Amino acid sequence: MKRKGTWLTYREDVRVFDCTIRDGGLINNFYFDDDLVRAVYDTCEAAGIDYMEIGYKASKDIFSPSNFGKAKFCNEQFVREIVGDREKRVKISVMADAGRTNYKEDILNKSESAIDMVRVAAYIHQIPAAIDIIKDVKDKGYESTINLMSVSAVKEKELEEALEVIGKTDVDVIYLVDSFGSLYSEDIENLMITFNQVAQSYNKKIGIHSHNNQQLAYANTLEAMMRGASYLDATFGGLGRGAGNCPMELLMGFLKNPKYSLRPILKCLDDYIVPLKGKMKWGTDVPYMLTGQYNIHPKLAISFVESEDRNKNYTEFYDSLLNENL
Amino acid sequence: MKRKGTWLTYREDVRVFDCTIRDGGLINNFYFDDDLVRAVYDTCEAAGIDYMEIGYKASKDIFSPSNFGKAKFCNEQFVREIVGDREKRVKISVMADAGRTNYKEDILNKSESAIDMVRVAAYIHQIPAAIDIIKDVKDKGYESTINLMSVSAVKEKELEEALEVIGKTDVDVIYLVDSFGSLYSEDIENLMITFNQVAQSYNKKIGIHSHNNQQLAYANTLEAMMRGASYLDATFGGLGRGAGNCPMELLMGFLKNPKYSLRPILKCLDDYIVPLKGKMKWGTDVPYMLTGQYNIHPKLAISFVESEDRNKNYTEFYDSLLNENL
Repeated sequence: MKRKGTWLTYREDVRVFDCTIRDGGLINNFYFDDDLVRAVYDTCEAAGIDYMEIGYKASKDIFSPSNFGKAKFCNEQFVREIVGDREKRVKISVMADAGRTNYKEDILNKSESAIDMVRVAAYIHQIPAAIDIIKDVKDKGYESTINLMSVSAVKEKELEEALEVIGKTDVDVIYLVDSFGSLYSEDIENLMITFNQVAQSYNKKIGIHSHNNQQLAYANTLEAMMRGASYLDATFGGLGRGAGNCPMELLMGFLKNPKYSLRPILKCLDDYIVPLKGKMKWGTDVPYMLTGQYNIHPKLAISFVESEDRNKNYTEFYDSLLNENL
Repeated sequence: MKRKGTWLTYREDVRVFDCTIRDGGLINNFYFDDDLVRAVYDTCEAAGIDYMEIGYKASKDIFSPSNFGKAKFCNEQFVREIVGDREKRVKISVMADAGRTNYKEDILNKSESAIDMVRVAAYIHQIPAAIDIIKDVKDKGYESTINLMSVSAVKEKELEEALEVIGKTDVDVIYLVDSFGSLYSEDIENLMITFNQVAQSYNKKIGIHSHNNQQLAYANTLEAMMRGASYLDATFGGLGRGAGNCPMELLMGFLKNPKYSLRPILKCLDDYIVPLKGKMKWGTDVPYMLTGQYNIHPKLAISFVESEDRNKNYTEFYDSLLNENL
């Protein structure tokens, strides 16, 4: 498959998608100050970013609001406080995890909400549940995506079947999600062939959400874009669980469309994201590299990195990974 | 041009090339303890690494030995103290900068030396000087490379001419060096077409040396390998000037040849490289990203990152870069 575009052109179909608060919230249980969330929103607007994912629509039956910040639930009032009264130039997205959201009650009709898009995150066995959410939110008037998680751990035949089922829904965008940060550029190239077949048959767009375990989040985002993905996820400073995500500043420095602007993002890094570094841990580190290389969930690496044990070392982590977990 | 090999095969022609001490020495004027240099050497041996670059052959007329550690000059005695008396399984390389080395005096005949390879670093205008060094060191019996620096800033026509001239020498390997960390995977793909033409005509091998300004050092190293490069530079923990280099641990986790082993590298990171982090600064940061994006030398970014000014911020650096330096 030939690559789309060159380094000097830009693609009208590209949409830059910020998920700083949503993916970053996985580190601090969404306890962000409203100020910071508003700063990210204002920055998205100033930088020309197309979408901002402000958090989750999590079930309050499963997750107690006393244990999480507002962005875990994204009540309408919270969203409106962040976006304010002025004309909205950045579309607002929320994520709904298949099986962990009361979408029927908690997601209002689009006409009553400041939210524009609902992204449904699902592992492959949750596709039927995801489709039910997609039907609900499309009926309510939202844009929608299905974010097919941990695609590096899915068999080809099953992936093709899942995409075929997803293609038949009303969903707007199908996301390739490298949850474990395991994919190499050649994997992206191959997966994009499969995703493109379905996207072209059913007139869907393709998105890419990467993790930085092997320092490939940015490279893979560019590779997916070159192969036809148009929705590109990134976060300020790469903020996100574990090794973090594709850094927005790298992506913005690359994109040639003059509507995008890097400087507001640098200002937000200076004022809001760099000061988080004492309080939240994210970014590449050897344990994340190892779980990425072995194509497993980063949770063991997260425990290691967050541990206060001063005697911890990479070699022991590697040995325990090989001896106990593979 | 088709890629070589797949993710499950391995290429017999691949040579892993460590330059931890040589590139890392640019940060601390080569003031490494002998213990650390020896640990890197022992680790290279245990990990199956093919070459270790132990430092420079710098001119003592230009650089005073009182201002630099031993690895800046790599006297024979220093090299022998590091490699010891046992059978040598890792080839030893030194780098000679065109115009800054007294190669005729300071490089012994191979038969009198523990060094196996001399790599000649040259900007494109220094090719004639580099060729003179190549002739000298080949006559003395060494393997040799020409490392063509800052290739991202060289015009295509001039690059083709330079490669043609280099092809006619006795040099063994021609290196593509992304000094500014500016190249994208598509640049690598295109440059490799040019490098391959010369390499095939003149029976040369190709090497890749990348910098991590845009978090693409590893991705680009893999891309170059897939396109036919066989000499792959990397450093432990990515240690190297500015944003650093392709991290060895990432590369070793990828390569499938069973002669390579990751664990010894993790042990060396634990024991020697992680403890350097308080004393030496390297690794990705926004200023390096910016100089990479703008395809300029990282020296301004290095000054910024090393400055103790607590009020420094990314936005000001960006503004000064655009206003004063581009």
